[in-house]
Amino acid sequence: MEKVSVLFFPDNLIAHVEPGTSLLRAATLAGVELKSNCGGDGTCGRCLVKVKDGRVNVKSTGSISQRAKQAGLVLACQSTVNDNVVIDIPKDSRLDEHQVLLEEKDILMERDEDLAAGYDFKPLCRKVKLTLSEPSLTENVSDLNRLQAALRNEMECGDIHIGLHTLRGLADTLRTGDWRVTVTVTQLNGCADIVHLEPGHAEKPSYGLAIDIGTTTVVVYLLDLESGMTLGKKGTYNKQARYGDDVITRMIHASDDSGLNDLHLAVVNTINQLIDELLSQSHVSEDDVHIAVVAGNTTMTHLFLGLTPKYIRLEPYIPLASVTPPVKAEELGLKINPSAYVACFPSVASYVGGDIVSGTLITNMAKAEEIVLFIDIGTNGEMVLGNQDWLVSVSCSAGPAFEGGGITFGMRAMKGAIEYVRIDSETFEVEVSTIGKSRAMGICGSGLIDCLAKFRDVGIIDRAGKLQTDINTPRMREGDDGWEFVLVWGDVTECGKDIIITENDIKNLLRAKGAVYAGIRSMLKAVQLEEEMIDKVLIAGGFGNYINIRDAITIGLFPDLPPEKYVFIGNSSVKGARLALLSQDAYREAQELGKKMTYLELSVGNDFMDEFVSALFLPHTDMSLFPSVVANNDQKGE
Amino acid sequence: MEKVSVLFFPDNLIAHVEPGTSLLRAATLAGVELKSNCGGDGTCGRCLVKVKDGRVNVKSTGSISQRAKQAGLVLACQSTVNDNVVIDIPKDSRLDEHQVLLEEKDILMERDEDLAAGYDFKPLCRKVKLTLSEPSLTENVSDLNRLQAALRNEMECGDIHIGLHTLRGLADTLRTGDWRVTVTVTQLNGCADIVHLEPGHAEKPSYGLAIDIGTTTVVVYLLDLESGMTLGKKGTYNKQARYGDDVITRMIHASDDSGLNDLHLAVVNTINQLIDELLSQSHVSEDDVHIAVVAGNTTMTHLFLGLTPKYIRLEPYIPLASVTPPVKAEELGLKINPSAYVACFPSVASYVGGDIVSGTLITNMAKAEEIVLFIDIGTNGEMVLGNQDWLVSVSCSAGPAFEGGGITFGMRAMKGAIEYVRIDSETFEVEVSTIGKSRAMGICGSGLIDCLAKFRDVGIIDRAGKLQTDINTPRMREGDDGWEFVLVWGDVTECGKDIIITENDIKNLLRAKGAVYAGIRSMLKAVQLEEEMIDKVLIAGGFGNYINIRDAITIGLFPDLPPEKYVFIGNSSVKGARLALLSQDAYREAQELGKKMTYLELSVGNDFMDEFVSALFLPHTDMSLFPSVVANNDQKGE
Repeated sequence: MEKVSVLFFPDNLIAHVEPGTSLLRAATLAGVELKSNCGGDGTCGRCLVKVKDGRVNVKSTGSISQRAKQAGLVLACQSTVNDNVVIDIPKDSRLDEHQVLLEEKDILMERDEDLAAGYDFKPLCRKVKLTLSEPSLTENVSDLNRLQAALRNEMECGDIHIGLHTLRGLADTLRTGDWRVTVTVTQLNGCADIVHLEPGHAEKPSYGLAIDIGTTTVVVYLLDLESGMTLGKKGTYNKQARYGDDVITRMIHASDDSGLNDLHLAVVNTINQLIDELLSQSHVSEDDVHIAVVAGNTTMTHLFLGLTPKYIRLEPYIPLASVTPPVKAEELGLKINPSAYVACFPSVASYVGGDIVSGTLITNMAKAEEIVLFIDIGTNGEMVLGNQDWLVSVSCSAGPAFEGGGITFGMRAMKGAIEYVRIDSETFEVEVSTIGKSRAMGICGSGLIDCLAKFRDVGIIDRAGKLQTDINTPRMREGDDGWEFVLVWGDVTECGKDIIITENDIKNLLRAKGAVYAGIRSMLKAVQLEEEMIDKVLIAGGFGNYINIRDAITIGLFPDLPPEKYVFIGNSSVKGARLALLSQDAYREAQELGKKMTYLELSVGNDFMDEFVSALFLPHTDMSLFPSVVANNDQKGE
Repeated sequence: MEKVSVLFFPDNLIAHVEPGTSLLRAATLAGVELKSNCGGDGTCGRCLVKVKDGRVNVKSTGSISQRAKQAGLVLACQSTVNDNVVIDIPKDSRLDEHQVLLEEKDILMERDEDLAAGYDFKPLCRKVKLTLSEPSLTENVSDLNRLQAALRNEMECGDIHIGLHTLRGLADTLRTGDWRVTVTVTQLNGCADIVHLEPGHAEKPSYGLAIDIGTTTVVVYLLDLESGMTLGKKGTYNKQARYGDDVITRMIHASDDSGLNDLHLAVVNTINQLIDELLSQSHVSEDDVHIAVVAGNTTMTHLFLGLTPKYIRLEPYIPLASVTPPVKAEELGLKINPSAYVACFPSVASYVGGDIVSGTLITNMAKAEEIVLFIDIGTNGEMVLGNQDWLVSVSCSAGPAFEGGGITFGMRAMKGAIEYVRIDSETFEVEVSTIGKSRAMGICGSGLIDCLAKFRDVGIIDRAGKLQTDINTPRMREGDDGWEFVLVWGDVTECGKDIIITENDIKNLLRAKGAVYAGIRSMLKAVQLEEEMIDKVLIAGGFGNYINIRDAITIGLFPDLPPEKYVFIGNSSVKGARLALLSQDAYREAQELGKKMTYLELSVGNDFMDEFVSALFLPHTDMSLFPSVVANNDQKGE
């Protein structure tokens, strides 16, 4: 069949596709990234585009609002082309390309900070400079034997391996360097593996990458493995987002080989883009990066390695592998030295992955006497409870609400996102603060939690989350999808639309917070502990950096513990990966952690479901669990 | 530049080459294999061709006889083309394509014969049929953990590895087979490596290859690793011969990357051709061959793996590696399952290689009390002396004389080769026996030894190997290169030429036999033993199968021991490889052997040179070393 052309404005990018191809697919092919939270199911309504010229076949108008229809917008995923068309992409439909904001503090401090946990600086990979004795008729062992003997003199190691590719260069390298040679050695589990050889004594150190693959964002750190210093940090959105916002949608897409390959390439490309930026910024060459340590949730690790996550999604939720073998960069297409090892953190179970093991490693909780609760909230809420003697972990599907998913004006924590809300208890007038102090575009997770807490404080909603439609303000109104409350009027928003919270949004938020709290309760029950026995709560994740603990307790997301017990630890996943890069002992401990952690499957038995239902109130059906909230309400005379 | 075409008759094969290309190179490109013992140096005179049409530039006519020049023959290696030419290839110049003759006895007996050495049948690779328990919400370990646990129940193994490629298929394989799976496991050093997965319980066994890479011939055995039976054996000439007959010439060719690649591909192609024949004959698929064990001399092992042998040739003769890592078939381009391991026997030194370690393994000498001398004569004479307590090895460059190299009518032991000679002591009339009872084409190693012994017996040569020109026979005559003796008149030879032995041929033979005997003497001296303390002499190699021990003692090639102490053991190299395939313990022992064997470098000190000079007489300057020869001479009244 003759191909047709699809031209995308304002990018001016073109795709030549078979007739019958969807606009969403055409956009991907043209290199235009559209939002597609539902992965092309026609249900999320994010991939709206306008047909400027030509005609498309619209299969479904699904969730498009009346207004959008009148404006001539169609869902890219539900529209196919038969003829040449010209398409206009509204700003809102575009997958945001902005860089993820990273904490940028004094990076020179970090090595010692990481190792403060009690690990020696013994990087997974380093360059060793050797001077060999020259061979003679009486001292005539092979080049390889000579090299191995010299290396054993320099470092503790068991067997010394070398791959064929590296071995092939050995004879000439030794002689070019006049028997001085620099050997890049990786030690993942005691064994030494020679991954690279250079003649003479190299000036440049070996470099390594710590990589955190989140469902939403991917973060890469570049480290100098001689000094242990972090040379740069970059983060960006996971390009897999074009195949769906959450892991479930992506797993469905990955159910066949080509879908699996799409997702595998998307995350590898995401990482390669970050590598590229980091290397050119630090003037480091691809070939000098000799190792990467990767932490990601179980599904992300599977997709990164090209392992099918199909059976993670289906009961009884079985990952293909929890401990994966270290692989070579060239097997994955990672743009570093092809011989570099890429090692992934082990997972505990289908929904407690390497990112949590990495986080647990950096918290040091497995070495402490005190009982620590470690919480990492993204699309799923993953939590670990324990101390040096025991560790239990759970995962509860909080849904993407805290990342802005399933919320009408939900968005990620970036410029223009509402993060704090103040509401006058008399007039119900609203003041908002946005990230970057710019015009509001939407509302991020911490903003939603704050909003929910304030709604409850001033009585806009009741304990069940129902909007009180009788309050006297034009902000409370009936919209297309039932009752809604206007947070910001359209005349001062970036998008020109009123930013609203609907009753449905609130329901999604209640489900999300209920799931997290019910997960915590289930863990405590399993080990027969009370909330007050928790000595410390560590909150990880980008979301955690902005959250207001008081708000989180008010809505019943977190246990009612003194706020001083709560500590934010940022992106613990990438920090754990960095620690493992710098310390062979930490890497080994991560392997042990993966085995040591007990996984509590919440879908077995009714305990979790009972806890979940009880947690769908604000803060909870059992008010005795939230004494500080009761006290506060009492103070206000409720 | 415009390419020119070179058409080869009678094959009718064509090569399109740059002007200035040699005819030898053009022939290789066209797929025509010419003899080229000197590797294209213009010295051996083997690559004679006739220009039928067009003109070539002749750089040198080197060693061409007057007659050949008159017949219009040129050296292909010394002639370059500038225009289209048509070339005719005489039969004599063609690298023989005949299959190498292999012992074909009852192959069904071989497994037990091999294992009689006291090894258990524990092949390096085998298929294990597993039935896994189905996962459930409470029994929810990963697919890989489940597989590893089941495998540990079935077999003794330490760590269990799996490569990314194999791992990627795990989830679907387990479910397709309804939790029954066949796992192909390789165990090279205790660790188990899963190299292949099949759903269900496979009918077919796993297959393995035992490969002997000789400088001259390559032999491959195909084994069923479930029964241990040998299914087939094939041998052919090493296609590297087009780059030179001996290892030195090939090492020179391999001194740059493209030459190394030529030789690497040539041997891989040789093996692939044999694999192809074996598999189609046994109806086995490429993908079902999961392991190969390779024994070759140090240079052959280097070239097979693509490691430069450059420094083996130059003092102080250092191999790149003596112990090489097992590699994957796909890294070498071997046409078996790409994930199959290919393991090479370790070498002892530059000129005592894996073939000798393999041979020593099969002799069991490292486990015996009696003192054994193991001799493997090819281009080099490699010998091992010792018992369970000590092993010493040497290599002496015997030169290619015993393989027919450097001898005017020398040829390999194949159809038409003279193997026995009878000479009337009065008339000097000669009767010859040839392999295959066909017309004589030349004379092979055993024939040359017999010839030398008989020449001495009837007084055609003196103790220094000088032809006695005063004897009364037309067979003794002066030729182009000095005195010569006619063994067979041209009217009854296959080639139509007189088959002669020149004084130069005899000199080359003396040097060859002198080197071997001097090597044996040097070893004995090093360990302070006398010849008579040797309990057994094991003769390996195709050459050894045809040799007459009495002759060999008469000329002073082998020590003067009772003939019953001599045992022929055939191709010990491939047999050792087969044993290692069938027994993990034998494989491990081979690794140990490589370390245990002491290498005596003959070029250090003057001992070997002194011994060599003394051994250039027939049988030796010191006649007391050959009492049985003296006794025999006395009997004949000399």
